[in-house]
Amino acid sequence: MAQALVLERQRVLSLREIDLPWRMGPGMVRIRMDVVGICGSDVHYYRHGRIGPFVVDRPMVLGHEGAGTVVECGPGVSHLRPGDRVCIEPGVPDFSSAESRLGLYNLDPSLTFWATPPEHGCLTPEVIHPAALVWPLPEGVSQAEGAMVEPLAVGMQAVTRARVRAGDVAVVLGSGPIGIVTALCALAAGCVRVLIVDPAQEKTRIAAQYDGITALEPGDSGLAPQVLAATGGRGADLVFECSGAAAAYAGVAGLLRAGGQLVCIGMPVAEVPVDLVALIVREIRVVTSFRYANVYDRAIALMAGGRIDVKPLISATYPFARAIEAFERADAARPDDVKLQIAFGG
Amino acid sequence: MAQALVLERQRVLSLREIDLPWRMGPGMVRIRMDVVGICGSDVHYYRHGRIGPFVVDRPMVLGHEGAGTVVECGPGVSHLRPGDRVCIEPGVPDFSSAESRLGLYNLDPSLTFWATPPEHGCLTPEVIHPAALVWPLPEGVSQAEGAMVEPLAVGMQAVTRARVRAGDVAVVLGSGPIGIVTALCALAAGCVRVLIVDPAQEKTRIAAQYDGITALEPGDSGLAPQVLAATGGRGADLVFECSGAAAAYAGVAGLLRAGGQLVCIGMPVAEVPVDLVALIVREIRVVTSFRYANVYDRAIALMAGGRIDVKPLISATYPFARAIEAFERADAARPDDVKLQIAFGG
Amino acid sequence: MAQALVLERQRVLSLREIDLPWRMGPGMVRIRMDVVGICGSDVHYYRHGRIGPFVVDRPMVLGHEGAGTVVECGPGVSHLRPGDRVCIEPGVPDFSSAESRLGLYNLDPSLTFWATPPEHGCLTPEVIHPAALVWPLPEGVSQAEGAMVEPLAVGMQAVTRARVRAGDVAVVLGSGPIGIVTALCALAAGCVRVLIVDPAQEKTRIAAQYDGITALEPGDSGLAPQVLAATGGRGADLVFECSGAAAAYAGVAGLLRAGGQLVCIGMPVAEVPVDLVALIVREIRVVTSFRYANVYDRAIALMAGGRIDVKPLISATYPFARAIEAFERADAARPDDVKLQIAFGG
Amino acid sequence: MAQALVLERQRVLSLREIDLPWRMGPGMVRIRMDVVGICGSDVHYYRHGRIGPFVVDRPMVLGHEGAGTVVECGPGVSHLRPGDRVCIEPGVPDFSSAESRLGLYNLDPSLTFWATPPEHGCLTPEVIHPAALVWPLPEGVSQAEGAMVEPLAVGMQAVTRARVRAGDVAVVLGSGPIGIVTALCALAAGCVRVLIVDPAQEKTRIAAQYDGITALEPGDSGLAPQVLAATGGRGADLVFECSGAAAAYAGVAGLLRAGGQLVCIGMPVAEVPVDLVALIVREIRVVTSFRYANVYDRAIALMAGGRIDVKPLISATYPFARAIEAFERADAARPDDVKLQIAFGG
Repeated sequence: MAQALVLERQRVLSLREIDLPWRMGPGMVRIRMDVVGICGSDVHYYRHGRIGPFVVDRPMVLGHEGAGTVVECGPGVSHLRPGDRVCIEPGVPDFSSAESRLGLYNLDPSLTFWATPPEHGCLTPEVIHPAALVWPLPEGVSQAEGAMVEPLAVGMQAVTRARVRAGDVAVVLGSGPIGIVTALCALAAGCVRVLIVDPAQEKTRIAAQYDGITALEPGDSGLAPQVLAATGGRGADLVFECSGAAAAYAGVAGLLRAGGQLVCIGMPVAEVPVDLVALIVREIRVVTSFRYANVYDRAIALMAGGRIDVKPLISATYPFARAIEAFERADAARPDDVKLQIAFGG
Repeated sequence: MAQALVLERQRVLSLREIDLPWRMGPGMVRIRMDVVGICGSDVHYYRHGRIGPFVVDRPMVLGHEGAGTVVECGPGVSHLRPGDRVCIEPGVPDFSSAESRLGLYNLDPSLTFWATPPEHGCLTPEVIHPAALVWPLPEGVSQAEGAMVEPLAVGMQAVTRARVRAGDVAVVLGSGPIGIVTALCALAAGCVRVLIVDPAQEKTRIAAQYDGITALEPGDSGLAPQVLAATGGRGADLVFECSGAAAAYAGVAGLLRAGGQLVCIGMPVAEVPVDLVALIVREIRVVTSFRYANVYDRAIALMAGGRIDVKPLISATYPFARAIEAFERADAARPDDVKLQIAFGG
Repeated sequence: MAQALVLERQRVLSLREIDLPWRMGPGMVRIRMDVVGICGSDVHYYRHGRIGPFVVDRPMVLGHEGAGTVVECGPGVSHLRPGDRVCIEPGVPDFSSAESRLGLYNLDPSLTFWATPPEHGCLTPEVIHPAALVWPLPEGVSQAEGAMVEPLAVGMQAVTRARVRAGDVAVVLGSGPIGIVTALCALAAGCVRVLIVDPAQEKTRIAAQYDGITALEPGDSGLAPQVLAATGGRGADLVFECSGAAAAYAGVAGLLRAGGQLVCIGMPVAEVPVDLVALIVREIRVVTSFRYANVYDRAIALMAGGRIDVKPLISATYPFARAIEAFERADAARPDDVKLQIAFGG
Repeated sequence: MAQALVLERQRVLSLREIDLPWRMGPGMVRIRMDVVGICGSDVHYYRHGRIGPFVVDRPMVLGHEGAGTVVECGPGVSHLRPGDRVCIEPGVPDFSSAESRLGLYNLDPSLTFWATPPEHGCLTPEVIHPAALVWPLPEGVSQAEGAMVEPLAVGMQAVTRARVRAGDVAVVLGSGPIGIVTALCALAAGCVRVLIVDPAQEKTRIAAQYDGITALEPGDSGLAPQVLAATGGRGADLVFECSGAAAAYAGVAGLLRAGGQLVCIGMPVAEVPVDLVALIVREIRVVTSFRYANVYDRAIALMAGGRIDVKPLISATYPFARAIEAFERADAARPDDVKLQIAFGG
């Protein structure tokens, strides 16, 4: 039995004891959690009790953006030692599956993922996890930053799959947490400039504080004139769609140069009407990106090297004892909140 | 003034004299046309007087799938000589444009294309064209086959952009001329098996005569069960959408393996509802393909090497004097007609 | 204790009882061996007692090209059943290693490989192996062909890494077993033509019996004139170096078109002088290929689909009781022997 | 007749009148030169009168790293106007050649290149050049920086061909001008860290002043221990060989991770012994990079966006009247000189 933040059912959270199924064994590590970020999906489960086919039909511990400290290593673990500060990939695949063998372990159909029903999450003082998914944090990267690696990895996956080239110009649609980290990853991957936009324009304020990121105005004439003006009439090399809004797809080909790339990250709630002819006649490639594989080490290195600074995105930190309050604030969706975190211990 | 098959306006064809603007000069060749195929777009202009924004608002010579014989070479032409049998790329780009310099000359916005208003086509006994777009036909490839290189190139572009790998399984949606040549190109590019389907099931008959191509039945339960059965439950590596039908996109992700590719060639007449989540959660890449660049030599070599046989696709050949009759038959759209051709001379 | 073909030390083979360390368990299968091919590396260990740093310093069972029949499945094995005819990937990686997670499990430094010291091979009536590395053979692919999947996979890896495009022309240097299967894989991957050469010219005879493969003459004037003549003066798209001979690298850039690829498969015994400037000024990419990962299913499908026929490469088959005799013949290196196999049972 | 810096023959420079063959025409622009950098190849022609097969057998104007101001535009030039500050790609291809059509116009065999015999260079007050190879400089990029775009483009080509990924670690061998700009391009392309080394260790001093670049010590124990220590034992993702020294290839595979890339830019004067087995068994890809194509706009954008700062690399500037003196200093090869420039006018 362990203390945990439990989503009992839609809109009902408890901080209570719960029995967790994790067991130590070869290749496993026990980790004391230090910081856990609240993700939009956590809030979505809280609000709606489900995300698409994933239904919370019994109490589930929330949280999957975690950093902690190793307290015990199972047999065969060689790259970690007790005391190591770490962050954790929350999705556990079968590494010998057909998808994993191809390097696409994020697409393994047997993968389980923290705080995705029926799997419990990490808002509990201690977790047990496969060492292959636990990454040491170097000096200079705090536990709070470590807990940002998970969302950052979503952006890293997108820019890695899109094969960004040095000097590209990117447009990011949507300035929520994923939009902003994707913008930061695009810059880290060589984009010289990122243009970001959000229907809630105040949400771009924090993004636009970064060098290299410019906010566009979601005006009546559409984005194309602004994007063309910013690119000498050529169009952007990349559009990263991070909003999941169907409206974002209207006219999107017009933002891109011939041969450009549209990268889909946000998940629309329904089918989206797409102007395929506009994509076809300019041979625009549509890249889809889901979670992440093989990018945690890169995300951590870019943080450690000062190439990506996520600290301005951490809006507030709550002690674990006030975790429910943190969720209530997340649920309120203040436009200037990017990331709320929950800290354990001391 | 030259004899030509002229589309005067919607539904009105003449075989008559017309003044053509082409002039000889450095890098240009004069070609006596031998065979010209009728493309679906020729028929579309005949029926509707337009394709999207391209409107036939003055008389226009039809035809862009041409093979002929070089009769004169302008200064600076070194790879051709009078008497060479050739086929011709109908789109003329500015090779120094930004797109062309990148190798994407098919996307050059200044490109002109035979029989796309206001540009005249090649259904006339003699054309003048840039030598860089004129390709010699080797022994063993007839003029009739040479006139098939243009549609074949559409399939070559698709399989080249999609980076087919040896042993892939592909689904082709639509069994018109482009669907069939794409299936042939997919096999030539290493696919071990192509599954083809068309709502008009009799159209798959000719495709299914080729080794390696199997027709699927467009039944009530959808294609997914058939595709999964044919791939050991894994899904196809590639779907080539050649129909342009919006319905083809319904459930298309379910035909593909995780990490697979959807290749869009057919041009829908309107926006198409797309289930983006189904594409995203399995990281399916959407590749678009438009016309062709840098594939004519490859298409010709595959024909010459016996790897692609287009002869079964040539349903009938009309003399130039009966070109209007050929268009009337094309307009009738017999399900067993794949390609009608018009032959000059002799 | 099991009967096995044991290399006691350099030049000393026994057919005798030996204790094998393999144990059943979750995810493992027990396989009755039916056919095992003799690889050049088996013969090399027999002749020299070592390959580079891999020294046979205690008795070792030879053989790693195996096909068999499943006799028992451990817990958790779902894609195999007793009675399934299968072929087997001989290299066992840690699927959770950094390399494996990237899809490069062939490069995992902890990988063990049949008949590579200190690991025993499969020339024994029964083996135990991870199910993830055991591949069912479809109807129409015999056990003898199944035992050819391993060498074929070496060629598949090379053509997959090289990203062959439909219509490419390839040169294969070396016409031993790996040269020939690489030529077959190149054709299956879309090459329209393969030019093969070997200093021992009679070794190209069997290769040249295949449609699409032409033997070059290793004459005094070098290969470049022949390759340029065969490619209209342009040069080949790909050179696959399968001989491991340093001499093969002399002038190799001159066989390739600008932007072409040199694929290195053969392992030279020492450093090789390379004309880097000739590669640089034409931006030729050098692709290296080692063993294989994620290609067994593709190789099997291409065999089953009739795209690759390895049957002409099986020169002779010996019963297991005469396995030593088979090695003596392999050691004799008759120029017309491509692959010798050893069959168990019946 | 125009004033120019003429290399009469080996070791003999004149500042004198010479007749230049360039003529205005459609698509051409006349440019007043403002700044020209001295390249190692200029100095090499001065010292040796030749580079490999390129022999200075009649007087030749030197210089190919140029920035200037447009003074006249020929017919058909639309993206430039008199008064525009520009930099210039010195290599003029036939844009309709087979190589150019593929996007590889740097590999067009008919390409002419400033100051490569028999082509004159740009150390003359006025040049005429195809507009497609003339790039406007944005505000904030000076003429001196504009004249650095040419060497920077060499680094951009290398990182573009190598497909650098965000978070990569690179080693750069050689800290001359090309080594340093390649290091800067690697950082701009997403490398989190660059390790640079040169046998003349003082040459790394300027490189190491940049954030993200660390100098290695060319010690007795080789570079591998230092590179492994800097990468947690894994090896670098990329090695950029910029020295052209044969010694640089000794042990180079040991600096790289499995699946890494060796990028060859420097041109060795003779064949280089390469340990191919070390590359093969870890599937290291060897990428070659020659001059550049399609990267000038990207290099300029990265400068303008503050992502690459070349100003610290400009060691000294000489007026055109003292151009010979500038060459004498370049010939002296001071270790702390990176780039010398010659300025016109003012």
